Amino acid sequence: MSLSTFFEARSVAVIGASKTPGKIGHEILKNLALYEYKGKVYPVNPKEKEILGMKCYKTVSEIENEVELAVIAIPPKSVPGVVEECGRKGVRGIVIVSGGFKELGDEGREIEEQIVSIARKYGMRIIGPNCIGIYDSRSKIDTFFQSRERMMRPKEGAVSFITQSGTFGCSFLEWAAEEGIGVARFVSYGNRADVDEPELIEFLGEDERTRVIAVYMEGVGDGRRLMQSISKTSRRKPVLILKAGRTKAGSRVALSHTGWLAGEDRIFDSAIKQAGGIRAENMEELQDMIKALVKQPLPKGNRIGMVTNGAGPCVMAADSIVERGMKMAELSQETLDLLKRELPPYCVPGNPVDLTGSATSKDYDVAIRLLMEEERVDIVMPFFVFQDTPLDEGIIEVMLRIRDEYPEKPIICGASGANYTRKKTKELEEIGIPVYPTPERAVSAAYALWTYSLIRQSRQ
Amino acid sequence: MSLSTFFEARSVAVIGASKTPGKIGHEILKNLALYEYKGKVYPVNPKEKEILGMKCYKTVSEIENEVELAVIAIPPKSVPGVVEECGRKGVRGIVIVSGGFKELGDEGREIEEQIVSIARKYGMRIIGPNCIGIYDSRSKIDTFFQSRERMMRPKEGAVSFITQSGTFGCSFLEWAAEEGIGVARFVSYGNRADVDEPELIEFLGEDERTRVIAVYMEGVGDGRRLMQSISKTSRRKPVLILKAGRTKAGSRVALSHTGWLAGEDRIFDSAIKQAGGIRAENMEELQDMIKALVKQPLPKGNRIGMVTNGAGPCVMAADSIVERGMKMAELSQETLDLLKRELPPYCVPGNPVDLTGSATSKDYDVAIRLLMEEERVDIVMPFFVFQDTPLDEGIIEVMLRIRDEYPEKPIICGASGANYTRKKTKELEEIGIPVYPTPERAVSAAYALWTYSLIRQSRQ
Repeated sequence: MSLSTFFEARSVAVIGASKTPGKIGHEILKNLALYEYKGKVYPVNPKEKEILGMKCYKTVSEIENEVELAVIAIPPKSVPGVVEECGRKGVRGIVIVSGGFKELGDEGREIEEQIVSIARKYGMRIIGPNCIGIYDSRSKIDTFFQSRERMMRPKEGAVSFITQSGTFGCSFLEWAAEEGIGVARFVSYGNRADVDEPELIEFLGEDERTRVIAVYMEGVGDGRRLMQSISKTSRRKPVLILKAGRTKAGSRVALSHTGWLAGEDRIFDSAIKQAGGIRAENMEELQDMIKALVKQPLPKGNRIGMVTNGAGPCVMAADSIVERGMKMAELSQETLDLLKRELPPYCVPGNPVDLTGSATSKDYDVAIRLLMEEERVDIVMPFFVFQDTPLDEGIIEVMLRIRDEYPEKPIICGASGANYTRKKTKELEEIGIPVYPTPERAVSAAYALWTYSLIRQSRQ
Repeated sequence: MSLSTFFEARSVAVIGASKTPGKIGHEILKNLALYEYKGKVYPVNPKEKEILGMKCYKTVSEIENEVELAVIAIPPKSVPGVVEECGRKGVRGIVIVSGGFKELGDEGREIEEQIVSIARKYGMRIIGPNCIGIYDSRSKIDTFFQSRERMMRPKEGAVSFITQSGTFGCSFLEWAAEEGIGVARFVSYGNRADVDEPELIEFLGEDERTRVIAVYMEGVGDGRRLMQSISKTSRRKPVLILKAGRTKAGSRVALSHTGWLAGEDRIFDSAIKQAGGIRAENMEELQDMIKALVKQPLPKGNRIGMVTNGAGPCVMAADSIVERGMKMAELSQETLDLLKRELPPYCVPGNPVDLTGSATSKDYDVAIRLLMEEERVDIVMPFFVFQDTPLDEGIIEVMLRIRDEYPEKPIICGASGANYTRKKTKELEEIGIPVYPTPERAVSAAYALWTYSLIRQSRQ
């Protein structure tokens, strides 16, 4: 079967459905049955007649109609029998949410292997075990046991995320929902007994809805296939990788988490680079990079031009730019002269263009336009101190016009603060301009754009 | 004069007061005159008779009463004359907000030197120029040109921050206000023409209201005095340092920002360590460290014990712990046995104690208590996936009791998510338990506690 069945299944059985709110088998059923998913949903539990007003089946084989997908949330020892039954019923894909398998050692590993071999016999595919499963923003398939009250779901869009950790999955989904970043497909695959990263990456590489692929992983299974899948995909769309288990201590925790050893990190790191993947250091950076890559065009080079009404963050940004192998743009004399001529006397031309605390939106307009026109600048990086009261409300309108007039040069902003700053940040983000709360994070977003532009060039 | 005059002045003249909302001279006056500051406020501007309903003076010498502090926001060339006049009037402290001095090169540097020599003649002290000045949470002195609508002010408390960058000052103040972290004194000193870091650090070292000192700096003036002040202070309270200008590019930007070269970073780094200062990598880390140091006791060692209902972040945390020179605690057989006996079968004892997605608040209670009792654990680090619906609302009550019963072992939490998670995070922080949004940030908070505990031990 194609992996698309997981995302587009028209019928789902929840095996281990429960009447008790808060229980995993209850929350999964509720999320599938009571919200946006339009397919058929069948609760399965031998002890219940009815759950949430729906008829409850003793076994999956009792269900009168076709069942494409089964979500399993029962103790590990009962899973093999249920998988066998799913096979006989003609189920095509299985998501095993339950934990208690390979991550616990040999006994669990054996059950896991048994399950996979049963699935193979019937041509079924498995996601999990020990995971939160899948989410598709179009079909609204949603196998999570996180209630809607506790976990927001993102809108439809272009980012797909696959993750070995369900927890990072939750973080990602809520981050995307709050930032207004659209998601295409999401898979939490836990112990990865069957469907693995290479297969998912290739599937997403060919998926028209996905423009950016992000991966959180702990253990590397088949390293060669993984690198091949990244290599094949990265020429078409960015593949961002966050990998844990860089140290022995981390690797040991990974083993007890998802049953996989993390492997030698330096080897992984250079293999990823060769394959054209972009590695993020942590979850925050992964998200920062995703935001830049979905919102901004790719730059022609790595020369950054800054403009600000408070230069402290520019000092930190300059450090970070150099440490990341990028450059502070050296403005042409012509641009410097124009800046001097067109800006008020309190402004200091240079890189950064320091508009000082007296800056108005008009000053930003002049300075950003000149940096957009400057050939020696590849990425424009404005920092805003929205708290500085001379900076008037016209700034959003200014940025909107700049966005429309210069769609080809990327712009990455920085601003840090509380309510008022967050409001302005949101207004900028709503018009497609990414804003980061610290200079280092803005630079790492710019770095992702530049790195992917290099990858594209070298792989055409 | 003692630096305390700056923070406790009972009368302030605003020189360059303006009628126009949004202008720097208007906003400063407004913040001093219309909010919590109880001292006398005198607008000074030769062109106005009245501003904000207050009588406006042509010069500072016209003011009938004593003036302890003057805040100056006029073009640089007019500043020396005004400072001379302040001297004659008997003003004791001056905050020069205006920019356009040393940061612009030789001409500005000369004016700056002239100002300082005038001040010396009269025994006056200067903060600035090119800064946002001072804030005292008790006297409510507030020389900012950031309106209250745009920038929150923090409550009274134990953290003092001195910063060369006004922008980072704004970030810090709003962060503290939102996180509910109390601030004692705040100084943005810009070009640092007179009052400098060593003097401020020693003042804060002796200040009873200050328990944690944080510094953002670009250029080092007198390195020896700086290190002496840190060395003297760090045995009594933590001194956190964020220094920009690690690279040549950063140093160049610093020069045009506040007129100071940043110096050789490696030398600075090792000198800071020797003096007992704690260096933060960026503003986010500085804030993370402050939060831990004001909220938590110091640990006896560097062995971290984790507990979680979703282990992905623990893998990343373990990496980060080892990279920071700390250790994953190795639990005693006794603790492992107790965990096995007292926790439900779905839980996996070890470090982390993996309570899995089925975890309830009772499971956290059992596990955290056992880690608190375990001698081999110095810092307890719970990670929460609040999205996981089996985790009941009782968790805050559990943590409150643990806080009261184990006040001597530090606890640092991690949780990441949107609305619901933020609500739970806030509830934990309100009972004094710090929560961080990523595992790396939780670890850097733990690192600050451990590092300061080492500094204290070595300096007793």
